[in-house]
Amino acid sequence: MPTLLDVIHQRYACHEYVAGQLVSASELALLLEAGRLAPSAFGLEPWRFVTVQDEITRAAVAQACFDQPTAATATAFIVIVALVAALDPDSGYVRARFKAEARGEDPASVYEAYRAFYRAETVEGWAQGQCNFAAAHMLLQATHMGLGSCPVGGFDADALASALTLPPGESPALVIALGRCAHPAPQRLRKPMV
Amino acid sequence: MPTLLDVIHQRYACHEYVAGQLVSASELALLLEAGRLAPSAFGLEPWRFVTVQDEITRAAVAQACFDQPTAATATAFIVIVALVAALDPDSGYVRARFKAEARGEDPASVYEAYRAFYRAETVEGWAQGQCNFAAAHMLLQATHMGLGSCPVGGFDADALASALTLPPGESPALVIALGRCAHPAPQRLRKPMV
Repeated sequence: MPTLLDVIHQRYACHEYVAGQLVSASELALLLEAGRLAPSAFGLEPWRFVTVQDEITRAAVAQACFDQPTAATATAFIVIVALVAALDPDSGYVRARFKAEARGEDPASVYEAYRAFYRAETVEGWAQGQCNFAAAHMLLQATHMGLGSCPVGGFDADALASALTLPPGESPALVIALGRCAHPAPQRLRKPMV
Repeated sequence: MPTLLDVIHQRYACHEYVAGQLVSASELALLLEAGRLAPSAFGLEPWRFVTVQDEITRAAVAQACFDQPTAATATAFIVIVALVAALDPDSGYVRARFKAEARGEDPASVYEAYRAFYRAETVEGWAQGQCNFAAAHMLLQATHMGLGSCPVGGFDADALASALTLPPGESPALVIALGRCAHPAPQRLRKPMV
């Protein structure tokens, strides 16, 4: 077994996948489990994970990602969708999460903090940023299982929402392209530690 | 060695740390290394990590976090700071990152995509969201090393910037409280997988 830092070192953005090498249902299930256990502010888990395996939807997702090579060759996607409308402090979603998080105590103080924090006009970007916690978990889990992966943030949000038939109030945050990577890791580039 | 999903399962938000049990310099170095290797959009790594160990600065950070127990008892912090001003497409920072990422090729197409993406009025929230990639890595690494940790997003940003003497154009994204956790993991709460 490698150490966690080994896995972190091994992860890289794969830009081309081997055609026909599909991602199995059990691999997808482990990726979803890794994402599901990610932390989130206020314990809100403001995400939903949409897996894409069939060829027609894959092509539509790739097109929404401007057919960039990592998307055009991916053999599966997990799209992380931000639950924007659900984050309204008066929603049933927030009520249910806060009730669970309070573990039998009074959730009033969390509500107070959340109401002070919440601003409808910025919540979409904030929720999308929260989705990066889940994404980081999934990308490491993919690496750990020997899968190639690449986070794709450059997409036509309307086209992607349409391809996935997202309801109003949900906003795609990040596409994770998946498959068997066709190329070994390139040389790692990082700015120096300061 | 545990599997990655074991580490993911073991991570939890620690709300109280054992007094006097400090985080060592070598532990902090491994946490920074885990964060440094996180992915980021456009390869921009729009972050800086500020470690806080001395008692006076710790107290100031805790106060900026409204002295919530996880911050008031933490024996170290890593504050992830979003490099907001540096993300201007015409900055030397962006130029240096894109030049490195282009690996000798022409960075013009990345520049074009980034210019189309960049909006000064939303870049702060976006950069803060990117910092969650690095945070997720650090939280898992802390767990892997047996350290307690908790991401803290509720803080007075001005007070925190002042405590860390951040220059203009840098914005605190997330405080990671660290130490030896005083309590075992509580029962895990997550919404059901759908």
